[in-house]
Amino acid sequence: MYARQRVRCSVAATLEVVGERWSLLIVREALMGSKRFDEFHDRIGVARNILAQRLKALVGHGVLKRQPSPENKRIPLYTLTPKGEDLLASVVSILQWGDRWIHDDVGAPIVLTERESSQALVPMRPTTKDGVTVTAKNLSIHAGPGATAVMRQRFAPTATRK
Amino acid sequence: MYARQRVRCSVAATLEVVGERWSLLIVREALMGSKRFDEFHDRIGVARNILAQRLKALVGHGVLKRQPSPENKRIPLYTLTPKGEDLLASVVSILQWGDRWIHDDVGAPIVLTERESSQALVPMRPTTKDGVTVTAKNLSIHAGPGATAVMRQRFAPTATRK
Repeated sequence: MYARQRVRCSVAATLEVVGERWSLLIVREALMGSKRFDEFHDRIGVARNILAQRLKALVGHGVLKRQPSPENKRIPLYTLTPKGEDLLASVVSILQWGDRWIHDDVGAPIVLTERESSQALVPMRPTTKDGVTVTAKNLSIHAGPGATAVMRQRFAPTATRK
Repeated sequence: MYARQRVRCSVAATLEVVGERWSLLIVREALMGSKRFDEFHDRIGVARNILAQRLKALVGHGVLKRQPSPENKRIPLYTLTPKGEDLLASVVSILQWGDRWIHDDVGAPIVLTERESSQALVPMRPTTKDGVTVTAKNLSIHAGPGATAVMRQRFAPTATRK
């Protein structure tokens, strides 16, 4: 996939899988419990042919799995794999940004809570293990083990303390 | 923007701003220090006409600001606004997902640290204020103050404990 690329980046690689509006909305819907084609179609408002393409691609990438419905073998159900469920952090951080910067006038359309405690989620922030919050101001970028030669020229190798 | 929509969603609203591969890669590059058109062009590998469109849209959405370079007034510099810098959490969570699920064989291409302490960032997880991690299994979804009528039918209103 990256054989000819000068740069290897996990943001770009992730966006190859879900970096397109409909794909991430399909993941959002699956996290909210949608399983059937018609549920995704009605709730996202995406054209049926595009939805069919995106569902197939997400199954191909191992984000969704497709299984026959126990009630009716002819109806497939789409559910998240562990890889797909792990996109929750990305979906939540995107949702929280929208709450802060786009829907700040009307209030959050959706409130996410933890089921047992009914406590709301707090804003997700990048942090170190000691709990220091990292912003654009104190972010430092290093070439990691998977960096290409071009990337190692641009970014000093990491000298992180564990 | 949402006058005729039955559903209001901060994921969808955010994706209207950055929900497209190139836009989020431009934000990534800006977080990594790129400021000039040619820097974005060389480092992202996007066609010049598409880059020009996306930069203009991100300025229009208030994610980037465009100012003349102090060295050469004819060269514009693109830098993140506070709204744009606040996308760091989304970019980092997407990067970490790619590290875990796509580049797990080669290792992380990029390692992010906090500048002062040189400590690496820990994986971002949605949590409650008591530090309980929320996954797809214990996530609960409620209609918030900005929910539309259709959303309030689908999701019970929130009864969160602060």
